Amino acid sequence: MTRVVADISVSVDGFVTGPGAGPDNGLGDGAEGLHAWVFSDDEVDRAVLEDATTATGAVVMGRHLFDVIDGPDGWNDKVGYGAGHAARPPFFVVTSTEPESVRLAKSHDFTFVLDGPAAAVEQARAVAGQKDVYVMGGGEVVRGCLDAGVVDRLSLHISSLVLGEGTPLFDATTPRRLTQRGVRVSPHAVHVTWDVER
Amino acid sequence: MTRVVADISVSVDGFVTGPGAGPDNGLGDGAEGLHAWVFSDDEVDRAVLEDATTATGAVVMGRHLFDVIDGPDGWNDKVGYGAGHAARPPFFVVTSTEPESVRLAKSHDFTFVLDGPAAAVEQARAVAGQKDVYVMGGGEVVRGCLDAGVVDRLSLHISSLVLGEGTPLFDATTPRRLTQRGVRVSPHAVHVTWDVER
Repeated sequence: MTRVVADISVSVDGFVTGPGAGPDNGLGDGAEGLHAWVFSDDEVDRAVLEDATTATGAVVMGRHLFDVIDGPDGWNDKVGYGAGHAARPPFFVVTSTEPESVRLAKSHDFTFVLDGPAAAVEQARAVAGQKDVYVMGGGEVVRGCLDAGVVDRLSLHISSLVLGEGTPLFDATTPRRLTQRGVRVSPHAVHVTWDVER
Repeated sequence: MTRVVADISVSVDGFVTGPGAGPDNGLGDGAEGLHAWVFSDDEVDRAVLEDATTATGAVVMGRHLFDVIDGPDGWNDKVGYGAGHAARPPFFVVTSTEPESVRLAKSHDFTFVLDGPAAAVEQARAVAGQKDVYVMGGGEVVRGCLDAGVVDRLSLHISSLVLGEGTPLFDATTPRRLTQRGVRVSPHAVHVTWDVER
């Protein structure tokens, strides 16, 4: 059965980017370490990434994240979600306006959803088959999905940084009870998964 | 050698209490689960608590926490830090004014420090011998010690709750690089320890 999994890297103080994040500045000032685990050779980190990718039937993301991914320093044939796998999942982008052009249009299947994160999750669910819908961020989309009550599982990758400022993951979020499901530890991150009470 | 260890329980969204915390309302609305691990019979939780207590030579806390501890539903001979051990460590309370009376004065050694968390850490260090100084909260005191650069080790107990509001642990904190040192997992919490770059 399809689960909706919100999956994102955070600092110890709960930021998903540092200050000044964007297509020209990646994850923001001092925050590149948030994704150290993604690019590590550690076998735990590799397994965490591989397991999530294998389980995913469709992906939901926000517009800021799309702009980074589709920007000049963004994804390509060798870098990005699903790269190296037989097929990439379809991607659903929550946005208020469709972009004028999509650099990755030939290699990636993007759908632009204009009516919010819960609607994007529903469209993703419709094509995910028995696999999971993977909400990959940014923080605003994860929070929107949590607040809308459509997240089954929260998966955080806690990196060894205190950022002090940036984009917070949780900001006046609806309170939720969680059930801890699994913890994997590498030298770069603590990977924790919780079920979310709906 | 004495280390200064900041040790506190947090929700997944980084709150150390829920809304309305205080002597009459404990950890605040919906937040009692933050300390589920403290009162559990799980052997990992017991070991985490026991190891910290054994390593501690002196304790630093803030005034709000002291008021809860010394209040009518607070600590007693059987409940509280160091209860059941041969000797309790001395406690240093960061406050702007000394309390008029101390209920626990006969059983506990409290010193009131009027010039801030870093000064309290120094006073605690002077009596800790070879053992650790344990900064047990609340959030304001932990943050003050982090910002003053006097914390060697940060130990968080991450409980399976999203609170949405309350007292944040991190709030415009000075950025710090951390090194992940240890992770222990129980059904109630993920116990993570980092060294703090000073």
